[in-house]
Amino acid sequence: MPDNNTILISPEQMHKRFASLLLPLGFTKERADACAKIFTDNSVDGIYTHGVNRFPVFVQYVKAGHVQPNAVPSLHHKFGGIEQWNGNQGPGPLNAVHATETAMQLAKQYGIGCAALANTNHWMRGGSYGWHAAKAGFVFIGITNTIGVMPAWGAIDSRLGNNPFVMAMPYKDEAIVLDMAMSQYSFGAMELSVYKNEKLAVQGGFNNMGELTNDPAEILASRRALPIGYWKGAGMSLLLDVLSAVLSGGLAGHQITKSGRETNISQLFIAIDISKLSNHSFITKTLDGIIEDYHQSTTVDASKKITYP
Amino acid sequence: MPDNNTILISPEQMHKRFASLLLPLGFTKERADACAKIFTDNSVDGIYTHGVNRFPVFVQYVKAGHVQPNAVPSLHHKFGGIEQWNGNQGPGPLNAVHATETAMQLAKQYGIGCAALANTNHWMRGGSYGWHAAKAGFVFIGITNTIGVMPAWGAIDSRLGNNPFVMAMPYKDEAIVLDMAMSQYSFGAMELSVYKNEKLAVQGGFNNMGELTNDPAEILASRRALPIGYWKGAGMSLLLDVLSAVLSGGLAGHQITKSGRETNISQLFIAIDISKLSNHSFITKTLDGIIEDYHQSTTVDASKKITYP
Repeated sequence: MPDNNTILISPEQMHKRFASLLLPLGFTKERADACAKIFTDNSVDGIYTHGVNRFPVFVQYVKAGHVQPNAVPSLHHKFGGIEQWNGNQGPGPLNAVHATETAMQLAKQYGIGCAALANTNHWMRGGSYGWHAAKAGFVFIGITNTIGVMPAWGAIDSRLGNNPFVMAMPYKDEAIVLDMAMSQYSFGAMELSVYKNEKLAVQGGFNNMGELTNDPAEILASRRALPIGYWKGAGMSLLLDVLSAVLSGGLAGHQITKSGRETNISQLFIAIDISKLSNHSFITKTLDGIIEDYHQSTTVDASKKITYP
Repeated sequence: MPDNNTILISPEQMHKRFASLLLPLGFTKERADACAKIFTDNSVDGIYTHGVNRFPVFVQYVKAGHVQPNAVPSLHHKFGGIEQWNGNQGPGPLNAVHATETAMQLAKQYGIGCAALANTNHWMRGGSYGWHAAKAGFVFIGITNTIGVMPAWGAIDSRLGNNPFVMAMPYKDEAIVLDMAMSQYSFGAMELSVYKNEKLAVQGGFNNMGELTNDPAEILASRRALPIGYWKGAGMSLLLDVLSAVLSGGLAGHQITKSGRETNISQLFIAIDISKLSNHSFITKTLDGIIEDYHQSTTVDASKKITYP
């Protein structure tokens, strides 16, 4: 959001600047451009935590050798519609695009396809792969594990990742995309609230006394972020880690946490080709009906319309 | 939980009684037994809401013709690893077992398989299909839509289902199974709390003033149950409905809600055959590591150990 301290720059300028910073780190021109585009797009969409705000960490990881600029995924194993890939510590967003397209190709052939990816890096905004697949006509499910940022239910030390979960469905020229992490708020979002001197809209974690609070500073102090739905999100986070690590054959969350840095993570990409369904010509009508009903909701605030993700 | 008003009966007695009540309704002996077993098992496991407490509704639906005792699913369409089935309004649990086994068979052939099921009935306890698949060596993801029981985020009228979501992973002789609905508490659970004169452990919905509350009676009065993670669970509920309805070609939640009864629902069953993965012989070790780390959590209450689902 522009305020008095904002310097406005165009997406083209941002893209150019990102790419120029990546080139000296060993990226080929094409890969520097592709990475710069992802960070720029996320920023333009307002997802600064996975755009401009995250870019310095990405650069730091490249410099430290945790992200290998020109590494590409290699196929480790395949059986029918499922493939296991090694991400070889390449840039997370480029690996994720590759795995998304692999799942799409498998789905074209088998109706449903799954690409599991070990030893990869942070994919930034998971929803972008949902958009990518859905705009091409595929239902998409994506899972990643992360470093531990959240305690198990009833615990105080952070052993669970916030393990984002993505579901996407093609809809007309757009898509319906859900991209949600298992914590009610990310630490990045809570830091932003502290910076803006705002409380959280709902309780986001525990304070050091073990009480639920909507004060982001208290949660940053305790490091006890709240899973969505309390015990439910904690359980879902565990299962998302279990699925990513087992199906990719890569590291589980606890191993990433012990390494002290969020690299060599595990991800899962499932695609379904809707053109192969018997009802493929009625899908838009089905979705129109769902969205129309959704919009007919009686709202708490009559001036507002319910929006879908 | 046995209390002073409890009459204890054995699982065998319960099973026999259930079966004897189904036989006169037109069930074959084999199908009466199979249904009776599911309701008994759920009761024995303590899931009374999908066991003995639910059985009368099941009987009522059979009597009204919404559940066809001897209808079996018919294959509507197939392409590679994905099949679309018509449940023909058969008993939900029997249809769900059939679809689970179909997904498992497809996974054997293609690594990953998906059975989508239209026109089926309430599957009772979704976790039981996760257990069924996982005990046989398959990763399982299951989705169902339901009648509307929850408002969209920012709305007051119930247009979203609580759309249970199941994930399961084989683990030694058991399984790790997550079975969660999108509402923080079901209406059944809240009715039970009212009966016991207890408050909910956490906020479970809004009262008629639009305030969050842990008073189950107030939520039953407003009918505004809270989605897990507030806007997140509401969004996930929408996507689960979208996926079930589109992939099965069956009814969406709003159509079920408008019909006034929870029948002709849509479900999705995805299975992955872990014996087809390159790391299949290390999976137990991977899971041991995850569970061991999970159990090392520092607990809020030192006398308690963290449990996994």
